[in-house]
Amino acid sequence: MENKQITILGAGLVGSLLSIFLAKKGYQVTIFERRPDMRKAGAIGGRSINLALSHRGLKALDAVGIKEKVQENCIPMPGRMIHDLEGRLDFQPYGKEGQFINSVSRGGLNELLVNEAENQGVKVEFEHRCTDVDFESASATFDNGSTVKADFLFGADGAFSALRSAMQKTDRFNYSQDYITAGYKELSMPPTADGDFALDPGALHIWPRGEYMLIALPNLDKSFTCTLFFPFEGPISFEALKTESDVTAFFHNKFRDAVPHLTHLEKEFFENPTSSLVTVRCDPWVKGNTALIGDAAHALVPFYGQGMNAGFEDCFVFNQLLEKHGQINDSLLTEYQSLRIPDANAIADLALYNFIEMRDKVADEKFILQKKIEKKLNQLHPDKWVPLYSMTTFSDFRYSEAWALGRKQQAIMDKVLDQSGIEENWENLDFEGIIHELN
Amino acid sequence: MENKQITILGAGLVGSLLSIFLAKKGYQVTIFERRPDMRKAGAIGGRSINLALSHRGLKALDAVGIKEKVQENCIPMPGRMIHDLEGRLDFQPYGKEGQFINSVSRGGLNELLVNEAENQGVKVEFEHRCTDVDFESASATFDNGSTVKADFLFGADGAFSALRSAMQKTDRFNYSQDYITAGYKELSMPPTADGDFALDPGALHIWPRGEYMLIALPNLDKSFTCTLFFPFEGPISFEALKTESDVTAFFHNKFRDAVPHLTHLEKEFFENPTSSLVTVRCDPWVKGNTALIGDAAHALVPFYGQGMNAGFEDCFVFNQLLEKHGQINDSLLTEYQSLRIPDANAIADLALYNFIEMRDKVADEKFILQKKIEKKLNQLHPDKWVPLYSMTTFSDFRYSEAWALGRKQQAIMDKVLDQSGIEENWENLDFEGIIHELN
Repeated sequence: MENKQITILGAGLVGSLLSIFLAKKGYQVTIFERRPDMRKAGAIGGRSINLALSHRGLKALDAVGIKEKVQENCIPMPGRMIHDLEGRLDFQPYGKEGQFINSVSRGGLNELLVNEAENQGVKVEFEHRCTDVDFESASATFDNGSTVKADFLFGADGAFSALRSAMQKTDRFNYSQDYITAGYKELSMPPTADGDFALDPGALHIWPRGEYMLIALPNLDKSFTCTLFFPFEGPISFEALKTESDVTAFFHNKFRDAVPHLTHLEKEFFENPTSSLVTVRCDPWVKGNTALIGDAAHALVPFYGQGMNAGFEDCFVFNQLLEKHGQINDSLLTEYQSLRIPDANAIADLALYNFIEMRDKVADEKFILQKKIEKKLNQLHPDKWVPLYSMTTFSDFRYSEAWALGRKQQAIMDKVLDQSGIEENWENLDFEGIIHELN
Repeated sequence: MENKQITILGAGLVGSLLSIFLAKKGYQVTIFERRPDMRKAGAIGGRSINLALSHRGLKALDAVGIKEKVQENCIPMPGRMIHDLEGRLDFQPYGKEGQFINSVSRGGLNELLVNEAENQGVKVEFEHRCTDVDFESASATFDNGSTVKADFLFGADGAFSALRSAMQKTDRFNYSQDYITAGYKELSMPPTADGDFALDPGALHIWPRGEYMLIALPNLDKSFTCTLFFPFEGPISFEALKTESDVTAFFHNKFRDAVPHLTHLEKEFFENPTSSLVTVRCDPWVKGNTALIGDAAHALVPFYGQGMNAGFEDCFVFNQLLEKHGQINDSLLTEYQSLRIPDANAIADLALYNFIEMRDKVADEKFILQKKIEKKLNQLHPDKWVPLYSMTTFSDFRYSEAWALGRKQQAIMDKVLDQSGIEENWENLDFEGIIHELN
């Protein structure tokens, strides 16, 4: 084995999972993490509190034998629960019977992965902030002045990656960071006085309101974590809600059925941070003896629940390539980035696209009708017509293939939904003809 | 006047022109330039040797009263001279009779502008590399440890701007850097043995070859500066030409009539640098009491000859806004970026688009036919149909409007050129009908 010593920057979800894959292949792995040990009391947490773990992430966890252990800490969400202005509910399954996504705590999952990494012999050094990288010697310099050399170095150090920042200064590095005009704020929804979930825990709750939305994911302690996705500026925006009574009035007006459960609404609204949402794309991901992985290579907006899943799939694919090539060499690295860059760009597009779907379309009659028609198409030809959400969330389709096929399907569905009287007559559609159009 | 003291980072073309505009309005301006004084012997030059100065640039120079002085050092180029594989020539005028672009030396123009700036009382500090900026206090820290505070600070410090780099680390700063797959290399074409121009100096010469091209611009000393735009990698690329005899054979094969004049071809090919070509876009351009201008805000690929012209137009527009608002304040800055960001994005698109036109389409029969038809349309309705190249190069149309209108015109022309027999019958076209389609 050529590259025996591996440095990983970042002990987040992707860095720690990657270290397990590599340790199991016999590499000596050291992770350097900027933050203090998250397992110690008082450590400052990462970003959002809970995440949606789905097929691609589970597949990667399964490959290192910890899927079941993780699933013990998951809450299955088989569908979305749409809340309208009057508080009426509409449950929309995400996929078929038995398919679901999983609400999981970021912090809890991260601790489990770091513990598992250490069990596999990985060394984790906290409070080491990388200040510089040398690509050829795979060496990283840290804020304590030390420099560590390895045979290969991964940047799994997130959306503001130090490795990527070093790469960006080199010639011919393509890079973009794009913020959407909305930001987000987390709000807590504690258990009821009876100690029960305030809402049905078997769903991801959405209050879609066109230009903005509130969502809620269940936690193991029977609370929900709510997230308001909301414009930064404009007539309805974070900027426009200036006082506690502005907030109270707005929430009563727009999220009426959530308000009784948001027991610290006004306080949290002004005390919790407002965070921005960025998409990062870059090319190449590999330079000398270093490579980017996870958010460092492709930060996504959160609307497809695929950020962690995409990062875990990066690890899964890298591990497959390691088995194919036998070692980390130029052919492996070339194949890694030529496979994953188009997929990362596709899931970045999909995540942006799904913001519009979640905040707006899920409440739309045509959208609901489309879901019905697509369900029927999938029942008739499960191998030929898989709805885009299912391809992305419940399949091994490459993201880039799912996105290309999804756009083709949408063009066909747009024509179908344009037919007059479709609301009444959809069951008499020429389903075979629709399937045929796909070829 | 509120903002009396102005710092400008960068004494390049845009920084020095901006300083003249501001000095003429009574501001006390200091420019800090990373490089040594270009007026002293031995100073390392900037990037490309000559540039194409056209209407937008001249308009800005005229506004500070130095247009004539600059034009004395210009060589007018009223058209392109296309060289085919056999060395046959085809002259294509850029616009109407009397319209031309100007070949001008970057170094010479820069010196003239810096001299003029100093004449206007601008202080220019060379060999000051900015290492950090504070947005609110408009202060810049330099590599000699000094920090200079002003009332307002401009980053006119080019494609790798220190101000933009500081902005990029702040939240919600949208940014992209995109390299094309081709690079460029400059080659010299000295005067002939008789001391004359080797080619007709009244044209920008192009050897369009599909995926790559050679161009040549005349210099005052009767030499030409040639630039090869060529893929970095691939079967025909910088990487593929490994030996002097590879280069000789390739040039003889593809640029036959240029070779006798490229007297140091093989030596220069391997000794001169191969440079990359980047498009930089960002948003916002303003933060606190600082603003980006010129390449720092919008680096372009060079194929429309508009990089300097766009930067000079930034200065012209800023000066107009200064006259409108009376001082540098929030309304001026908001208007500056809301006007110029869409225009910068449009000229960035146009410059990328024109690479394809220059290296490929100019040698195409349909392209030449389109030029004829558009010329006729323009003669019939000079106020309604202006060819895209003319709108960009010879008019005050906003770049964003020119680009939108140009795409509309191209869609109409694509249909016209698709008609069978168009080559023979174009003079019988329904020209009024075509003009009508534009509405």
